[in-house]
Amino acid sequence: MRTPKIPKPTIRRLAIYYRCLTKLKDNGVDKTSSKEMADLLGIKASQVRKDLSYFGEFGKRGVGYNVDKLSFKLKEILGLKKNWNVAIVGAGNLGSAIANYAGLEKNGFKIVSAFDVDEKKVGQMIVPGVTIQKIDDIEERIKNNNIEIAILTVPVNAAQEVTDKLINCGIKGILNFTPTSIYAPEDIEVEDVDFVISLKSLTFEIASSKNDL
Amino acid sequence: MRTPKIPKPTIRRLAIYYRCLTKLKDNGVDKTSSKEMADLLGIKASQVRKDLSYFGEFGKRGVGYNVDKLSFKLKEILGLKKNWNVAIVGAGNLGSAIANYAGLEKNGFKIVSAFDVDEKKVGQMIVPGVTIQKIDDIEERIKNNNIEIAILTVPVNAAQEVTDKLINCGIKGILNFTPTSIYAPEDIEVEDVDFVISLKSLTFEIASSKNDL
Repeated sequence: MRTPKIPKPTIRRLAIYYRCLTKLKDNGVDKTSSKEMADLLGIKASQVRKDLSYFGEFGKRGVGYNVDKLSFKLKEILGLKKNWNVAIVGAGNLGSAIANYAGLEKNGFKIVSAFDVDEKKVGQMIVPGVTIQKIDDIEERIKNNNIEIAILTVPVNAAQEVTDKLINCGIKGILNFTPTSIYAPEDIEVEDVDFVISLKSLTFEIASSKNDL
Repeated sequence: MRTPKIPKPTIRRLAIYYRCLTKLKDNGVDKTSSKEMADLLGIKASQVRKDLSYFGEFGKRGVGYNVDKLSFKLKEILGLKKNWNVAIVGAGNLGSAIANYAGLEKNGFKIVSAFDVDEKKVGQMIVPGVTIQKIDDIEERIKNNNIEIAILTVPVNAAQEVTDKLINCGIKGILNFTPTSIYAPEDIEVEDVDFVISLKSLTFEIASSKNDL
């Protein structure tokens, strides 16, 4: 049975709760509460309770949550009980920096392939043990290496063409770093990470708080 | 007068509409509609109209929007009529890749300073004309260079300490790439860009659609 439609911001917060619980666990904390987690994250306790309520009852009123159990449950909900094979598509500065980001492997995301159009990059190592391959070979390699997630860091003008190839070879999800909308069928998940949009969201807030003076 | 409280997802979409209008303009398109924009972005036309309605009446029913005018208005709303001086705080792989991202300058964000703790990096050029400086000098340099936005790409364990320094020297906004929550007073805007959280949001969707089978 599919979980009822969960709002996107709730899903992101679940991942943030999971990160928060992992930190509590590392600090030897056994029990927590919606209030404690909310305070750590700068949000409201009622928000934490509402988000978790989509998935059933976790804590006991007045007793709170068992950190281990809730953490395990969130890990399961977020699909993190397995490791995920990831491909970097576009091995420029940003693609390389992401591939080498320590947080990926730690969280169960393993870079197993990288692709680029630039002949000079092909054959170079992007992370230990993974050499950059020609993008022409992408369909075959994605299929043969059980890669379910692609991180898209190609230039804008190549974004849709590469996306179409990824769709053809059965990718399940795309993390889109290109500053453009990409189109994929409904059964392929797309998450956009556009930090220029985030910067503009920041300047909106700064500009509108200035108008407040 | 301060604009009424606008939901965060609306603000992000305004930035996306602005990007979409810029593209239409580049393609020589004069007029558009909520339907056309929505189709280009894979959302609903009613969403576009609702988001824009926070800021008044833009289009005429049945006639649509003048691309130039709406684009200009959104540019103003998003605080993009001026350029913004930006500092990169933490000049590792990710910080360097972001500093060199072509989309920044094109969108009015100018990297004018970069800081790191690593003595070996100090003095190196991060982008043409900008050398990496000691993080000890950050407060003075931020003040003297009229820097309003900091992009935070330091390790997690340094995140809050550096944030506190940035607050002290009068930064207006922080784009937080560190995988942790940072605390700042209400008048300092913080936007988180955590792509591991985005990946987990992706694996949630993939895992829950599998359960659907």
